[in-house]
Amino acid sequence: MRIVLDAMGSDKYPGPEIEAAIQLARGGGVEIILVGNERVVKPGLDALKATDVNLPIVHAPEMVDMAEKPAAAARGKAENSMAVGMELVKRGEADAFVTAGNTGGALANALFHLGRIRGVKRPGIGAPFPVKGGSCVLIDIGANAECKPEYLLQFAIMGSLYAEKVFGVHRPRVGLLSNGEEAGKGNDLVKGTYPLLASSSLNFIGNVEGKEFFGGQADVVVTDGFTGNIVLKSAEAVAKLLTETIRDEIKSNPITAIGGRLAQPAFKRVRRVLDPSEQGAAPLLGVDGLVFIGHGRSDARALVNAVGTARRAIESGLLAALRAELSSRLNETEAALEPAAAH
Amino acid sequence: MRIVLDAMGSDKYPGPEIEAAIQLARGGGVEIILVGNERVVKPGLDALKATDVNLPIVHAPEMVDMAEKPAAAARGKAENSMAVGMELVKRGEADAFVTAGNTGGALANALFHLGRIRGVKRPGIGAPFPVKGGSCVLIDIGANAECKPEYLLQFAIMGSLYAEKVFGVHRPRVGLLSNGEEAGKGNDLVKGTYPLLASSSLNFIGNVEGKEFFGGQADVVVTDGFTGNIVLKSAEAVAKLLTETIRDEIKSNPITAIGGRLAQPAFKRVRRVLDPSEQGAAPLLGVDGLVFIGHGRSDARALVNAVGTARRAIESGLLAALRAELSSRLNETEAALEPAAAH
Repeated sequence: MRIVLDAMGSDKYPGPEIEAAIQLARGGGVEIILVGNERVVKPGLDALKATDVNLPIVHAPEMVDMAEKPAAAARGKAENSMAVGMELVKRGEADAFVTAGNTGGALANALFHLGRIRGVKRPGIGAPFPVKGGSCVLIDIGANAECKPEYLLQFAIMGSLYAEKVFGVHRPRVGLLSNGEEAGKGNDLVKGTYPLLASSSLNFIGNVEGKEFFGGQADVVVTDGFTGNIVLKSAEAVAKLLTETIRDEIKSNPITAIGGRLAQPAFKRVRRVLDPSEQGAAPLLGVDGLVFIGHGRSDARALVNAVGTARRAIESGLLAALRAELSSRLNETEAALEPAAAH
Repeated sequence: MRIVLDAMGSDKYPGPEIEAAIQLARGGGVEIILVGNERVVKPGLDALKATDVNLPIVHAPEMVDMAEKPAAAARGKAENSMAVGMELVKRGEADAFVTAGNTGGALANALFHLGRIRGVKRPGIGAPFPVKGGSCVLIDIGANAECKPEYLLQFAIMGSLYAEKVFGVHRPRVGLLSNGEEAGKGNDLVKGTYPLLASSSLNFIGNVEGKEFFGGQADVVVTDGFTGNIVLKSAEAVAKLLTETIRDEIKSNPITAIGGRLAQPAFKRVRRVLDPSEQGAAPLLGVDGLVFIGHGRSDARALVNAVGTARRAIESGLLAALRAELSSRLNETEAALEPAAAH
């Protein structure tokens, strides 16, 4: 099994990537290919003197900049590290591509170099969220700001298959994110999507709100990329505000400060349980190749987890299953769409 | 100053309402009128033997049920407690109406009994969120699942005036909630709204994400009621998940449990800082009367805070200012809309 790791992805590239690659190569079971600017990556690798491992570097002279327009970067920079890495996947020289780089850049490069799985209208980005008692995939978290009900139906199909294959969930419970649990609640998009999900063969549990989502009552939650992105970033911001406020309040008094120090191991466990980087990486579902996007702030550990997610996807045959499912469900999708079209 | 308190609003009505009304009446400076079913409210009030205070009860034989369709309840039950209370405001017999009841019911009753301020296209519900270093009003959090750019412009105008009058913020910073800070990011609604806000006389700071919102970088954040409602409920759910996880992890080990007990006062302060009920109540902006909606889980303290918010709104002349602003800005609004209409 071969996995390409974008050496130019994370905010502190290529350090975390090189460190992760060495750990993974030592762990065995997977060949890691680093893709990036050789003049940056090779010295970084040499400095760590990891002479015991074989870590090929595939040279990519360019990179996707955070400041650039992703689509322009994907088209204009044919030799950016994402493009070069994805071409390896496309040619069958690697099984998956993992990056902690710009999400828009990954999406644009994937559409350009890998294309869509047959039958897929829009790829969606699925993010595993830490929720009560486990994790839940929210899809889409940013690929499509404007959506149609049929896109959300496909996100649900792909997200459900992902939860089944990669997380081993039997008949994943699929919820539709809405401003109320009752059927009939929602904006026009949700109201249009509800009957498609209800008449599909998915294990659809109806509309869900934050309570059910973070309460762990669904395995997959479907939404448009605008709302999903706002939920993702708001959840991160609320968690940050809460932990900072707790820290400040604990430190403001000597007794509570002692208590805080004694409770420190518990806080560390909380961070580990709720840290999004522990959840692995976000799959780009619907493109014709396995692509995983990690957080820009990823450290080596987070990247190792991201590659771990890619491994599970490869081992479970996710891509073949997505291809088969999407094409076999093409008819189902069309059938489900008919009543909506008749409205 | 007279404020009507819906005695049938909170999940545990009428207990918290009666308790809050007694506290407020004892505090002075405001006359409280309880509205609700006399046969329920009077015995509750008598049981507390608050013979030192004058607390008139206005009888309302019906109430808005959580299970009902709000619009149907508002129309079908002419004598529900919200309707009776709002009619007191309409007739000038009270200055504001406060309820911890069903949000949809309050909105439907307000539209039916108070109507809209001249020039207002859609009323919006503004919720004060605890954010870093203070609070921020998010509008709309649920009145309008489907919005148009001109509604969001009006939400911004009303939210800004609210922050100025009720929170005393000079030139409130107004942000537009989006899936990216850069101008040009967003769904069609956000892209259509951005130029309206940019060309208005508001202190518009551009698109904001969760980071800026919860980081306290805006005083008012504008969004559609679908997204706002999901952000509200997700923020509550994330905070709940995080605090429960911390509690469980602390309790799981004797040393951290001791630490947790020592740190207890700090956790209490955190709850107070971040408790939405400490933020007062959510104003229903754009209806022609002052209406405030508290959380269904409100206890007496939360209701006292909600009435406190209503008092500040009355004292600051919010309603007159909204009426003047909306009608004087009618021209500005129309002018700002022209380029959008030309697209």
